[in-house]
Amino acid sequence: MIRETLTDSRQEILRAAARLFQQQGYDATSMNDVAAALKLSKGGLYHHFQSKDEILFNLMDHAMTITQERVVNAVRGIPDPEERLRTLIRLHIGVVLSATDREITVMLHENHPLPPALRKKINSRKKDYIHFVENLVAEVQRVRQSKGNVAPRAAAFALLGMINWVYQWYKPDGVLQADNLAKQYTEIFFGGALQ
Amino acid sequence: MIRETLTDSRQEILRAAARLFQQQGYDATSMNDVAAALKLSKGGLYHHFQSKDEILFNLMDHAMTITQERVVNAVRGIPDPEERLRTLIRLHIGVVLSATDREITVMLHENHPLPPALRKKINSRKKDYIHFVENLVAEVQRVRQSKGNVAPRAAAFALLGMINWVYQWYKPDGVLQADNLAKQYTEIFFGGALQ
Repeated sequence: MIRETLTDSRQEILRAAARLFQQQGYDATSMNDVAAALKLSKGGLYHHFQSKDEILFNLMDHAMTITQERVVNAVRGIPDPEERLRTLIRLHIGVVLSATDREITVMLHENHPLPPALRKKINSRKKDYIHFVENLVAEVQRVRQSKGNVAPRAAAFALLGMINWVYQWYKPDGVLQADNLAKQYTEIFFGGALQ
Repeated sequence: MIRETLTDSRQEILRAAARLFQQQGYDATSMNDVAAALKLSKGGLYHHFQSKDEILFNLMDHAMTITQERVVNAVRGIPDPEERLRTLIRLHIGVVLSATDREITVMLHENHPLPPALRKKINSRKKDYIHFVENLVAEVQRVRQSKGNVAPRAAAFALLGMINWVYQWYKPDGVLQADNLAKQYTEIFFGGALQ
């Protein structure tokens, strides 16, 4: 019971911090701002997180957990590799565009340098995801007996670049909506990387 | 003569600031750090730039000028649209990977929110580049009488995402080198977006 409440508070703090970082920028937001937004005492906040770096690390880590759960775990069980890859593209775009997750996942693009030990942890989770995509691309290429002009690693980076870049230009009221975007990106990627 | 010296100092300040921002992060770098790195007095620095925001804006603006000169102006004169697009992909990857330009172009990805008037100027230059790529894609699709499954706008965003994301993972000593990367990305994009 106590543990549950603690977890809830941590989640609340992370969400509030993410919102502030989005609105006013990471560097312009102080620990005081975060505490004030939640009507927490400074001591209450420091009980959960020692520093802004620690909050940033936990946000990035949470973003990778979201990707793991909503994308990787959701597609793992799909037997057909092509279908698995199509679903991965759709779900990953969904995560990037999700109104609730976006505040958190966008923190993966924050350029603020983390202390080496924390950066290493995040990079290792990012690498796991890239390898998952790379292996899936290789599997689809095998099934399709593709010409092999495109290395799975280059293809994986291209795909993640296409998708992760979306936050830079996407407008919820724009011409390109989530469904349409997934369709077009799938078309581009399947036509180009898996021929 | 005086103007030339002034321009040189501004360029020097911008390069030094970009290097510091890369090394220690934008928010952890103060105007004092920038002045100290150049052995300038604080007054000498403020004579050129009033604030860190102004330096960041000028770095972003300079990054767009680099893109304009090294990519857009360099391909404009190529009569064949396919060749123009292939060259654009190669040159844009070259700019992203260039050791000298990288410190500056990477500032385009800094999430720090600029004052609205400055942000508007940068966004307008970014939009000009996106439209240039979008129109070129449309032209190549026409020439190739492509099936039209991919909207030029989605294709332009996909391509810029693929290329601009490179800075996130590229290692100068890695398996994927600039030439090979340009070849693979051209293959993916031509196969996928222009079918």
